[in-house]
Amino acid sequence: MPVDHAALLASALRGERRALARLISRVEMRAPGADALMASLQPRRLRAPGAPHVVGITGPPGAGKSTFTDRVVTEARRAGRRVAVVAVDPSSPRTGGAILGDRLRMDVHADDEGVYIRSLSARGHGGGLSRAASQVVDILDAVGFDLVVVETVGVGQGELGIVEVADTVLLVVTPESGDSVQAMKAGLIEVADVFVVNKADRPGADALARELEISIHLDDRPGWQAPVFTAAALDGRGVSEVVAALSRHAAYCADEGRGEWLARRAEGRVRTWLDLVADEARDAALSHFEGSPLLAGLRAGAIRPEAMPRTLS
Amino acid sequence: MPVDHAALLASALRGERRALARLISRVEMRAPGADALMASLQPRRLRAPGAPHVVGITGPPGAGKSTFTDRVVTEARRAGRRVAVVAVDPSSPRTGGAILGDRLRMDVHADDEGVYIRSLSARGHGGGLSRAASQVVDILDAVGFDLVVVETVGVGQGELGIVEVADTVLLVVTPESGDSVQAMKAGLIEVADVFVVNKADRPGADALARELEISIHLDDRPGWQAPVFTAAALDGRGVSEVVAALSRHAAYCADEGRGEWLARRAEGRVRTWLDLVADEARDAALSHFEGSPLLAGLRAGAIRPEAMPRTLS
Repeated sequence: MPVDHAALLASALRGERRALARLISRVEMRAPGADALMASLQPRRLRAPGAPHVVGITGPPGAGKSTFTDRVVTEARRAGRRVAVVAVDPSSPRTGGAILGDRLRMDVHADDEGVYIRSLSARGHGGGLSRAASQVVDILDAVGFDLVVVETVGVGQGELGIVEVADTVLLVVTPESGDSVQAMKAGLIEVADVFVVNKADRPGADALARELEISIHLDDRPGWQAPVFTAAALDGRGVSEVVAALSRHAAYCADEGRGEWLARRAEGRVRTWLDLVADEARDAALSHFEGSPLLAGLRAGAIRPEAMPRTLS
Repeated sequence: MPVDHAALLASALRGERRALARLISRVEMRAPGADALMASLQPRRLRAPGAPHVVGITGPPGAGKSTFTDRVVTEARRAGRRVAVVAVDPSSPRTGGAILGDRLRMDVHADDEGVYIRSLSARGHGGGLSRAASQVVDILDAVGFDLVVVETVGVGQGELGIVEVADTVLLVVTPESGDSVQAMKAGLIEVADVFVVNKADRPGADALARELEISIHLDDRPGWQAPVFTAAALDGRGVSEVVAALSRHAAYCADEGRGEWLARRAEGRVRTWLDLVADEARDAALSHFEGSPLLAGLRAGAIRPEAMPRTLS
């Protein structure tokens, strides 16, 4: 019997978590019919920023991203908002490689009915993970969450794609990141809206914050001027300033930054579409040539990858 | 006048570096005719492992990857081998965002004619960077380098694709990586052939090494048993053991591990082909629909990404 996605969606809209989880899994794995369901959704975010506010949190491993996620969630819950967290682990090719998610699940929000936590791990290929993240955000949007946090371990190209699903991107770094930040700067300066140097009690924090400020200044992006904070998230120092800046950015998107926000979301939709195009082209090529002498020749090294057909016609 | 790729290749084969650099740039940006050139190459590695030996070095930012790259290069030069280093920075969308490369260039190998250093930065979309890395390795192979080191900052999915171009993958982590390694482990345990916990004088190094050993053991990969080392690369402690293990793995690939090696390379060629298929599908879709009401509708939010056409027919 085919899965009734409309019924699952209706259940998810009534707040049934198992239905929501199942719906997300179907979309994540691109199950038959899932695209049709996605095509029929009308996320509220199409119409207005902040409905829901989607916050992306990224940074190198160990920078303290989860502390900020936790605090953002806590403050939103205090205000009575329904919150979803999407924890993306680009390094795990395994289903449910829920490393970030598990950590979150153990914490204080585990029993809170107003918080939904979901992890996504890398499966399949190419742009699959940012495509999945973008679709999952649309589902969470459609079923009525007020705030969606997308947390991902990030330094690479793939992770940029994941956080670009967000309205507001927070980059968390630490003085230890050192040359790390050198390496991240080029890509992330343009993507992040709020910066925080965490573990600010360690040497080099102020220098790093200044360096980031200079890079942002040099980047010379019009509109929103991305602030740089220092914090010691473990003691809670400086965290509320960061959370407040995320809200300020949401307000900016709804008002004088609306044009920028619309352009960013438009680009996000194009990216998701192209990810789907690329995924489908890979799948189609592989299944079309599976068992063929051409593919056997490629595997054996007799045919170069560049000499293989790119299309099926 | 069209660029004469065959002439560039002939010059590169004679050791002319500017020709080599130009050839790589053309392939990197998928310039017209570059695919035909690539399709005509017959990398030596098709026939035997170790001709050249391709070593991938990855790990989080600041782990000390470049120290190991440097040492691998130094030892190979001592043995009279010609060495190329491909420094991949997945976080930089800019051409020549040569952060890793610049650092390397400053060092002792800068004046050594037997060392060629090239950086690649993220440009374009999707699997572009692993596709480019794979093609660049094939060029360096074809023009006669004996050792190619591919160094990339990595925790994500994209970076896995980049290091998978290598015969031998070294993962460098540090005790600071902490939960970092938690987050990296799942994906990298399966990909890396040699592990090193660098900065071993810091607390937690031995625990981390044990943790890695357990994960590798649990992964239960047949064949090569990936060793875990501790090192303090800045003082040179433990580095030669790591370099020796990389050579041992090359010997393994040439002998009892030959079947594994062939399978890995075959999979790499299929991946490169699918990356080309995906890149081409994206480009074709975007240029086909540019200016169309459909794409305008997607940008405006009137059409969902999932409702857009996936193919041009």
